[in-house]
Amino acid sequence: MKTHLDCIPCFIKQALFAARAAVDDEKKIREVLDRIGMLISDIPLHHSPPETSRKIYRAVVEVTGIHDPFESLKAESIRAALALYPGLKERVVASEEPLETAARLAIAGNVIDFGANPDFELEQDIQAILESQPVVNHYHAFKEKLGTTQEILYIGDNAGETVFDKILIEVMSKPVVYVVREKPIINDATMQDAVRSGLDKVARIISSGWDGPGVSLKSCSESFLNHYRRADLIISKGQGNYETLSAEQRPIFYLLKAKCPVIARSLGVKQGDTVIKYALGETAV
Amino acid sequence: MKTHLDCIPCFIKQALFAARAAVDDEKKIREVLDRIGMLISDIPLHHSPPETSRKIYRAVVEVTGIHDPFESLKAESIRAALALYPGLKERVVASEEPLETAARLAIAGNVIDFGANPDFELEQDIQAILESQPVVNHYHAFKEKLGTTQEILYIGDNAGETVFDKILIEVMSKPVVYVVREKPIINDATMQDAVRSGLDKVARIISSGWDGPGVSLKSCSESFLNHYRRADLIISKGQGNYETLSAEQRPIFYLLKAKCPVIARSLGVKQGDTVIKYALGETAV
Repeated sequence: MKTHLDCIPCFIKQALFAARAAVDDEKKIREVLDRIGMLISDIPLHHSPPETSRKIYRAVVEVTGIHDPFESLKAESIRAALALYPGLKERVVASEEPLETAARLAIAGNVIDFGANPDFELEQDIQAILESQPVVNHYHAFKEKLGTTQEILYIGDNAGETVFDKILIEVMSKPVVYVVREKPIINDATMQDAVRSGLDKVARIISSGWDGPGVSLKSCSESFLNHYRRADLIISKGQGNYETLSAEQRPIFYLLKAKCPVIARSLGVKQGDTVIKYALGETAV
Repeated sequence: MKTHLDCIPCFIKQALFAARAAVDDEKKIREVLDRIGMLISDIPLHHSPPETSRKIYRAVVEVTGIHDPFESLKAESIRAALALYPGLKERVVASEEPLETAARLAIAGNVIDFGANPDFELEQDIQAILESQPVVNHYHAFKEKLGTTQEILYIGDNAGETVFDKILIEVMSKPVVYVVREKPIINDATMQDAVRSGLDKVARIISSGWDGPGVSLKSCSESFLNHYRRADLIISKGQGNYETLSAEQRPIFYLLKAKCPVIARSLGVKQGDTVIKYALGETAV
């Protein structure tokens, strides 16, 4: 997916949020905005939003000197999600269709996002998503595909959401390779966040080799690409992964909440809608 | 009121909206965003938001070559408001307290805003505002003050909202000097918009002498300032006027909807709340 002009004010807003998460010094935060302003004319619209987002966040890190502005927010998200885990797991297991409930719960976890969705209210948002239906719902295709799959490539998104992913992985009961970002970027899950979420107990965790908030294949490691090319079922969580993979011809299930109007338009849904979308490139279901 | 760092992403968003209203050429719109990006480091935070907003919109005009990007949207807003006028006037006259209903209706008209609030839904928003109470409500002080007032200085805001102002002016039944912007800026009302709204039938219309979306006193004309200094009751509509007058020690009634978190914080209300706020500088009621 290309960068849309609407993404530009959003990049500035996200940079401001990240700068505030990094430091408490208004002058420094102002300096971040000034720097990002200068970057605008260098944004290539033919690149995906995560490729630009990566540059924006790197500028925030450079100006503030803070390597991981979201470190404590990520740890807090994981703690909050782990506290919810027992009750949610119970709810999934007791539901009529545990696999579907777990998939929807994994989407609900996607509300934990200090990039596109910093105003989330975890418990209320989970409840709302579990009570509504995904607007695009390829759950049956997902269940069918899962039946014949040997190994799942699961591309994670945010820290905290990882705990919800763990529940889905437990319910799927298949070998899973779980993909994290190479370095801290926004509140995206890194190896450390995945381990803190207990994903190492249920999956093999690998890095994409890229430090942007998505999986820009031209920048990912060969090791990740080997997994990606041979996978017969890929789960892609969240907007950033969708933005970098949407043109791909691979058997990908996108589990996400459309948090911004650009993504909503791209998916043909309304902002705020959730989707379980199967897309095999041009031959999308 | 000073400019807040949160205003900066909002300026970019508003510039994008204005550029789109001006032209249909993505390259030109991109050029606007690049130019605004370069301007960020020149924004003086000690200036009020309308002073910066003015520079931003002037840049949009320069890059696009379109003198008044909102010309047709303003005309459409006035037409839509005039179509509602008979029903609304009837509703005001038939209400228990016509002056209060007219004041709240004048606030409802403030939703017509292609700067801070471009997603408004006119009729639904009016209904919602009329059904709810202003969160800060100095209506009784307003009524009392009005009783002893010889002439009202009424500082208008947006085109279309002007029609709602006309109803309040009719109900107040006092001589009114109505203030418009010197030149087109966003969808703020100019002399032409005020006349098209029929305000010339109920008030004397003057220009503030300034072409920003507010009344920056240091830039307003001496003629406006003469009215401003001697007025014993000033009605200030909307955010831009509040942002430029909030530190003033004059008998000002602010009628507005808090459309953004910065204004909401400044007023001690929630975003989306409406207020009829009397502030006599430090001795605010």
